[in-house]
Amino acid sequence: MNRKELSEKIIAAKTQRRLKWRDIAAELKLAPACATASLLGQMALSAAQARRAAEILSLDEEAVALLQQVPYRGSLGETIPTDPLIYRFYEITQVFGSTIKALIEEEFGDGIMSAIDFELDVARVSDPKGDRVRVTLNGKFLPYRKY
Amino acid sequence: MNRKELSEKIIAAKTQRRLKWRDIAAELKLAPACATASLLGQMALSAAQARRAAEILSLDEEAVALLQQVPYRGSLGETIPTDPLIYRFYEITQVFGSTIKALIEEEFGDGIMSAIDFELDVARVSDPKGDRVRVTLNGKFLPYRKY
Amino acid sequence: MNRKELSEKIIAAKTQRRLKWRDIAAELKLAPACATASLLGQMALSAAQARRAAEILSLDEEAVALLQQVPYRGSLGETIPTDPLIYRFYEITQVFGSTIKALIEEEFGDGIMSAIDFELDVARVSDPKGDRVRVTLNGKFLPYRKY
Amino acid sequence: MNRKELSEKIIAAKTQRRLKWRDIAAELKLAPACATASLLGQMALSAAQARRAAEILSLDEEAVALLQQVPYRGSLGETIPTDPLIYRFYEITQVFGSTIKALIEEEFGDGIMSAIDFELDVARVSDPKGDRVRVTLNGKFLPYRKY
Amino acid sequence: MNRKELSEKIIAAKTQRRLKWRDIAAELKLAPACATASLLGQMALSAAQARRAAEILSLDEEAVALLQQVPYRGSLGETIPTDPLIYRFYEITQVFGSTIKALIEEEFGDGIMSAIDFELDVARVSDPKGDRVRVTLNGKFLPYRKY
Amino acid sequence: MNRKELSEKIIAAKTQRRLKWRDIAAELKLAPACATASLLGQMALSAAQARRAAEILSLDEEAVALLQQVPYRGSLGETIPTDPLIYRFYEITQVFGSTIKALIEEEFGDGIMSAIDFELDVARVSDPKGDRVRVTLNGKFLPYRKY
Amino acid sequence: MNRKELSEKIIAAKTQRRLKWRDIAAELKLAPACATASLLGQMALSAAQARRAAEILSLDEEAVALLQQVPYRGSLGETIPTDPLIYRFYEITQVFGSTIKALIEEEFGDGIMSAIDFELDVARVSDPKGDRVRVTLNGKFLPYRKY
Amino acid sequence: MNRKELSEKIIAAKTQRRLKWRDIAAELKLAPACATASLLGQMALSAAQARRAAEILSLDEEAVALLQQVPYRGSLGETIPTDPLIYRFYEITQVFGSTIKALIEEEFGDGIMSAIDFELDVARVSDPKGDRVRVTLNGKFLPYRKY
Amino acid sequence: MNRKELSEKIIAAKTQRRLKWRDIAAELKLAPACATASLLGQMALSAAQARRAAEILSLDEEAVALLQQVPYRGSLGETIPTDPLIYRFYEITQVFGSTIKALIEEEFGDGIMSAIDFELDVARVSDPKGDRVRVTLNGKFLPYRKY
Amino acid sequence: MNRKELSEKIIAAKTQRRLKWRDIAAELKLAPACATASLLGQMALSAAQARRAAEILSLDEEAVALLQQVPYRGSLGETIPTDPLIYRFYEITQVFGSTIKALIEEEFGDGIMSAIDFELDVARVSDPKGDRVRVTLNGKFLPYRKY
Repeated sequence: MNRKELSEKIIAAKTQRRLKWRDIAAELKLAPACATASLLGQMALSAAQARRAAEILSLDEEAVALLQQVPYRGSLGETIPTDPLIYRFYEITQVFGSTIKALIEEEFGDGIMSAIDFELDVARVSDPKGDRVRVTLNGKFLPYRKY
Repeated sequence: MNRKELSEKIIAAKTQRRLKWRDIAAELKLAPACATASLLGQMALSAAQARRAAEILSLDEEAVALLQQVPYRGSLGETIPTDPLIYRFYEITQVFGSTIKALIEEEFGDGIMSAIDFELDVARVSDPKGDRVRVTLNGKFLPYRKY
Repeated sequence: MNRKELSEKIIAAKTQRRLKWRDIAAELKLAPACATASLLGQMALSAAQARRAAEILSLDEEAVALLQQVPYRGSLGETIPTDPLIYRFYEITQVFGSTIKALIEEEFGDGIMSAIDFELDVARVSDPKGDRVRVTLNGKFLPYRKY
Repeated sequence: MNRKELSEKIIAAKTQRRLKWRDIAAELKLAPACATASLLGQMALSAAQARRAAEILSLDEEAVALLQQVPYRGSLGETIPTDPLIYRFYEITQVFGSTIKALIEEEFGDGIMSAIDFELDVARVSDPKGDRVRVTLNGKFLPYRKY
Repeated sequence: MNRKELSEKIIAAKTQRRLKWRDIAAELKLAPACATASLLGQMALSAAQARRAAEILSLDEEAVALLQQVPYRGSLGETIPTDPLIYRFYEITQVFGSTIKALIEEEFGDGIMSAIDFELDVARVSDPKGDRVRVTLNGKFLPYRKY
Repeated sequence: MNRKELSEKIIAAKTQRRLKWRDIAAELKLAPACATASLLGQMALSAAQARRAAEILSLDEEAVALLQQVPYRGSLGETIPTDPLIYRFYEITQVFGSTIKALIEEEFGDGIMSAIDFELDVARVSDPKGDRVRVTLNGKFLPYRKY
Repeated sequence: MNRKELSEKIIAAKTQRRLKWRDIAAELKLAPACATASLLGQMALSAAQARRAAEILSLDEEAVALLQQVPYRGSLGETIPTDPLIYRFYEITQVFGSTIKALIEEEFGDGIMSAIDFELDVARVSDPKGDRVRVTLNGKFLPYRKY
Repeated sequence: MNRKELSEKIIAAKTQRRLKWRDIAAELKLAPACATASLLGQMALSAAQARRAAEILSLDEEAVALLQQVPYRGSLGETIPTDPLIYRFYEITQVFGSTIKALIEEEFGDGIMSAIDFELDVARVSDPKGDRVRVTLNGKFLPYRKY
Repeated sequence: MNRKELSEKIIAAKTQRRLKWRDIAAELKLAPACATASLLGQMALSAAQARRAAEILSLDEEAVALLQQVPYRGSLGETIPTDPLIYRFYEITQVFGSTIKALIEEEFGDGIMSAIDFELDVARVSDPKGDRVRVTLNGKFLPYRKY
Repeated sequence: MNRKELSEKIIAAKTQRRLKWRDIAAELKLAPACATASLLGQMALSAAQARRAAEILSLDEEAVALLQQVPYRGSLGETIPTDPLIYRFYEITQVFGSTIKALIEEEFGDGIMSAIDFELDVARVSDPKGDRVRVTLNGKFLPYRKY
């Protein structure tokens, strides 16, 4: 069983048990994005978390071991995602990438937002004209080292 | 003069005048991201905004006209950005794209976060271990039409 | 069974039963394009629709569950489609994309035609010189948010 | 002057004269899409039409000659368009390409919708929930020759 | 069994029976190129032809059904073919594509040679300096519609 | 002046003089395809032919020299041609490449059709249902050397 | 069993029997490169050679048949080879391709070195500073046909 | 003046003076391939050689300096060369790459043929059936370091 | 079993036995990078090393044979790695490649750092502000041969 | 003047003055790699450093301003570098990327080596068998945040 097969197994088990990512996350004492990314093969769990996930989703020992391994990251399998929901984030990078660069560098100087010391959050924002999705990307600023 | 040349001209004028994107945005009565994206050739300005921008940056009439045109969007000129700051956002899409999809669909049902009815914000979050960058992506949820 | 295997199973069952997409669509009370896209793994069905589809095509419980899941969309598996029928639509985008952009922006202002709040229709147009195919793309206009 | 430079010149002249594609098209006695595509370098005009276009837009003799030449078609300069408006049409091909193929072949048998004996129309559809864009693709059905 | 597996099965059966494409084509009352393309998964056969092919090559009912389905066309599985025989045709398109375009447009006006209402023939031309291959591409001229 | 600029100059001179490729070819005592390919930068002319071409098209000495040089071949500037007329030949290679390979190898054994010891012809075939384009590719068969 | 699987089987059998490509080639009365290429799925063997190879490597009848078939050539499965030994030959083409073109055309006129009527040899050249590899590419010169 | 412009200038000067690469090479006391590669921007010359080349080809001081600089190597400007002469070497790598790897590793063990401590030679081999091109690639064997 | 499957088997066996790459390397009397690369399918082991590795990891005879074979190198399966840890090395090549080239050529003259006669080391560097990773690339300088 | 043109100007000025990167670096009080990367358009200089660089290389005010701007990083202009010196670093990433990932994660846990808080050094290592290049990559370890 490789990591991708485990992810499919987890999704099937979750669907069958009518569970929600957010509820599983609460059980693992992790934020929803961190738990979901772990179960979709993009983050590693601690031994205790992996075991708890296995209980909730009836996974075997091999799965418990796999969930603790650091994965080879990259969830899409394509350079440019074809799925419209995910593509919109690629589009935002294409269209607003230079804007984000300009604003971060103006505020912080030469450096980047870390994608490692990084938190992701997805939330609903009520709006009378139609509710909105708010995705928050929160990463440590890392200044370029001048030496 | 095409749009890319105008953007370079604007950056040069801004540097020379020691202006900040955020200050120009305030003058245009726009959020910083919206103003910056407009001046970097990714959004269109109203006639009044274009004229005000031209005053601030000493741009000519051709620039005023161009700034009001809807641009051909896409700011990078490469499929996968090589600039590390911008690449991190591509990386987030690669690594966490499937997580974002799972969480949005669990919360909202089948649909996407709009990248058109969309606001972007870049902010500093103070942190004793090192300040952080918070990029907020806020788009209307659009449900897939079933017909 | 993954989504692609289910689509192949559905096509085989449909062929064996000499059914038509349009007839299945009528049974599901959906437009032909919406029903076909669902059965080809590009849209999700409601529980009732999935169950009805399973009856018509003799699909098992796993299929009923899969048909209700939101799929990872993108039906081609190639960047540029090699199939001539589908390629013509890529060609139309290449050749007339700038024309469509010009005409939509002239009529509506800065924004896009939604591909989410969107309906597709394929129809025959009788013509003495040879019948014609009319593909109608109908999507909500979404104006770019200026903020 | 090559074709792309001519297109840019035409757009500039049109903007300066505050003309609309639809009005120029009426002057050329062409449908809006056909006229716009010609002026954007994707279709050829007749001698009379080229001359009329030159009058309207104050173009020189070289432009009149160029407008009558059959162009090397393909308006994007990228395999996958980054502009969101145009990308949505690529997305529709990715997501609904297999559906369109299934429905055309079910209705007409083995063959394609021509992109050559082809008409394009872009229209506004009033809708209380927000007006809609209707793009109609109308091409002759061409059956595959069996020999 | 998918179409590619069927093609491999057909090639194996043909090799074992020491048959020739041209002889099978005669049995199916089709030109060699049309019959070969059908058996290699690029064209559809009629019910009678599919049945006859199955007799000749000892194929089962599933194969008979598949041979009548319109395939997803594209026989190479690579953008630029690596096989030298096939590559030469890609090379001819690269090197002489602009020449073919110039000569067709000079003779016929603005339009294309159809690849749908199209016949292909491969023949031997005796030559004392070494026999030659003559590949004839014969397609209906389709004029661009001006509307 | 590079080869591409020379080709553009030649096309402009030809248009201005209302010449035809076929007539220029007759003057050069070459087949139309060979002459056109030479003037479009894909073949080399002899000194006498280059001089004659220069007379007909009023080209200067630099052009005469360039026309005799062996060019870096490849006329498209894109991996997959976007121009519909030229794309159809790419499509034929994609769809019928395996058929052509099968038929050549059945008739001649293991080897290829040369694209170097090669002649190209483009002709009109009258047809009551609409005239047809016949493109003939005629190349020496080259057997693979077994050693 | 497809060709790639056969190649892997042959390599395993060769390893197990501690055979050398050069010795197998001698048994087949072929040059080492020709024999190796055949057994790696890039050339076809005669019936007698295929049978002899099968004896040496204990291959079954299906393998004997496959070895006589003309393969779909292209041994790498990637556009640019990642294996360093093979990459160096890609690098030589990149760095010295224009030099080879210049020298062949200066010596022979307009034409190419055939890769079909072609022999390959790999040899060791003793050298006190470290032995050297000499790869000899020997192909018939094919002049471009002017017609 | 960049390196590519210098190469074009050198080719023009060489053509005008009716010089041959082999003769220039003799003047520079270099092998033809080494001299040609240097003048085509792929190798560096010594100061004396650069000066001698400048005399022969009437180049200025800037050219003399450029010819001594180590270039950014890679002469094609495309991943897969479209020029048929150069493509054949790409094809040889594709088709015979695995064969070359097998034979070098059998003879020398694990390592590569250097493309740096490397000599290239292009020669004519007389043959009654048509002269042949012999390209010799001669590089030091470099064993992989095990540590 | 192919090389990739063996690598997965080795990783699983190592995880189960709670072994470390560095400890296995010590057993094989190899540097950690060399041993790890061998077990991940990028280097070949000697017979004794392969046997020792098999003892430690309970591998079968087929694995012992495979570990001694020279692999087809290239560990990523993608042109640009999506895994963030590995991508950073691609990024360093993109951002600092021209710097490395400038500094090596300034110090050593025209040539390269060998990636074959090459050693890799990964080490921890203690640092009060957070420990650091030091990757040392150590390759023989190979001067370009001028001949 | 854009950044790339400035880099070319700097290289030319440096060549003309017979300066070395290492000497310029000493003048700027920067490590050689940091100074070189800045002058090649991949890092930003402080105002004082930019001014000092301009004195040494006789650059104008525009250059002084540009050198202080944060650049759009990525020095190659190609996805896979064709220059052999730089390619070797791409090759190391391809061949040893999985090894580096395994060793860093074993030593440090889940995280990456920063390419931002990062130092690069290029040095000569004397060796009787031929001097060696040692490239040291030294980056802060960044652990993945679990939240």
